[in-house]
Amino acid sequence: MSIIKIERRVLEKNDELAGQNRDLLSRHKIYSLNMVSSPGAGKTSLLERTLETFDGSLRVAVIEGDVQTDYDAQRVARYKVPVAQIVTHGGCHLEARLVRDALSEMELSNVELLIIENVGNLVCPANYDLGEDEKVVILSTTEGDDKPKKYPAMFRNASVLIINKMDLIPYVNCNPDTIKRNALDINPKLEILETSCTTSSGIAEWCEWLKGRVRMRRG
Amino acid sequence: MSIIKIERRVLEKNDELAGQNRDLLSRHKIYSLNMVSSPGAGKTSLLERTLETFDGSLRVAVIEGDVQTDYDAQRVARYKVPVAQIVTHGGCHLEARLVRDALSEMELSNVELLIIENVGNLVCPANYDLGEDEKVVILSTTEGDDKPKKYPAMFRNASVLIINKMDLIPYVNCNPDTIKRNALDINPKLEILETSCTTSSGIAEWCEWLKGRVRMRRG
Repeated sequence: MSIIKIERRVLEKNDELAGQNRDLLSRHKIYSLNMVSSPGAGKTSLLERTLETFDGSLRVAVIEGDVQTDYDAQRVARYKVPVAQIVTHGGCHLEARLVRDALSEMELSNVELLIIENVGNLVCPANYDLGEDEKVVILSTTEGDDKPKKYPAMFRNASVLIINKMDLIPYVNCNPDTIKRNALDINPKLEILETSCTTSSGIAEWCEWLKGRVRMRRG
Repeated sequence: MSIIKIERRVLEKNDELAGQNRDLLSRHKIYSLNMVSSPGAGKTSLLERTLETFDGSLRVAVIEGDVQTDYDAQRVARYKVPVAQIVTHGGCHLEARLVRDALSEMELSNVELLIIENVGNLVCPANYDLGEDEKVVILSTTEGDDKPKKYPAMFRNASVLIINKMDLIPYVNCNPDTIKRNALDINPKLEILETSCTTSSGIAEWCEWLKGRVRMRRG
């Protein structure tokens, strides 16, 4: 069927461009992360806490992906890091081509860590390699503990799961142990961290994890 | 470009099938609603509270759309209403074709209200008409008050916005008035209700709204 053939071609082309992005980032010894989640799970807040914690001690650059508006880029720019905003105008995920265009406008020689914040969508971004080293999936406790089973592709393709909004656990019907069990059923290799961007719990551990990844990449 | 042409053809074909669904539902004087939201905004919980409130006084049927699992259909089936489960196996939205197949297996002469719970995704389902009378978008207070501006298509195409998880307002950084202002900026005709599935606040008003719609349809 022609639609499936075209879909396959789109993904092949995307993978080719993702490979080129990966080569470029690797040449600059940049460790890169693709942050994925539902809308409102806390990607931008986590990014803000992360940049606050590093406070310039790590050279970070950010690519913001949004369906509409540059609200997130504005929030991130307050932390004095280079930010490129991609507006997809309705598109439900970032693609390697868009990331390539953003990278072409960035001064990469000065970057150790690239964080790409994808469009808020727990389905579509799972299938699009951007050339990142790893995907981190952020799941908010308010979304419920059944989500890894209901949206398995994202949890299968991620290396790290951050369970965010841990401060809301007393008020919501969600057991973090059930999230973990469901997520590890889908992907037994998943590393799991717990954070709250409101109380800052877990943020130091997350930043340590990130620093470790950057150190490994710098050699 | 061929991809865009194919996309247009897919949407045209979808609209055609949606029209057929609409005719079928109209012949049976069924009022139908397409529930859309991010994952975990509370679509299934709202459906549970709704069925509990009607308690058989309205003849409801449900179509559940999920990327994976039949968890939601299992939850809904407890309320003794006919439920059809559509598993999209990775697909990011319901399509009219899938709804048609589900409808063909339902006893429609006995239904006054059809509720379709779409896949949890605030982007893609906006573009797919299923043949429903109206779309209701559910936004949880935990997702933040900027979401109507960041995901405008869904708010533009919906008739009703339900701001859910109102009980969590004291614990999250979200102003419901800002949600309303942002949503009405996108779509001035939007009707807006506030609910909590935990405290049941606003559920009676929502059910009254629904009953009014069903009454209008029955004539």
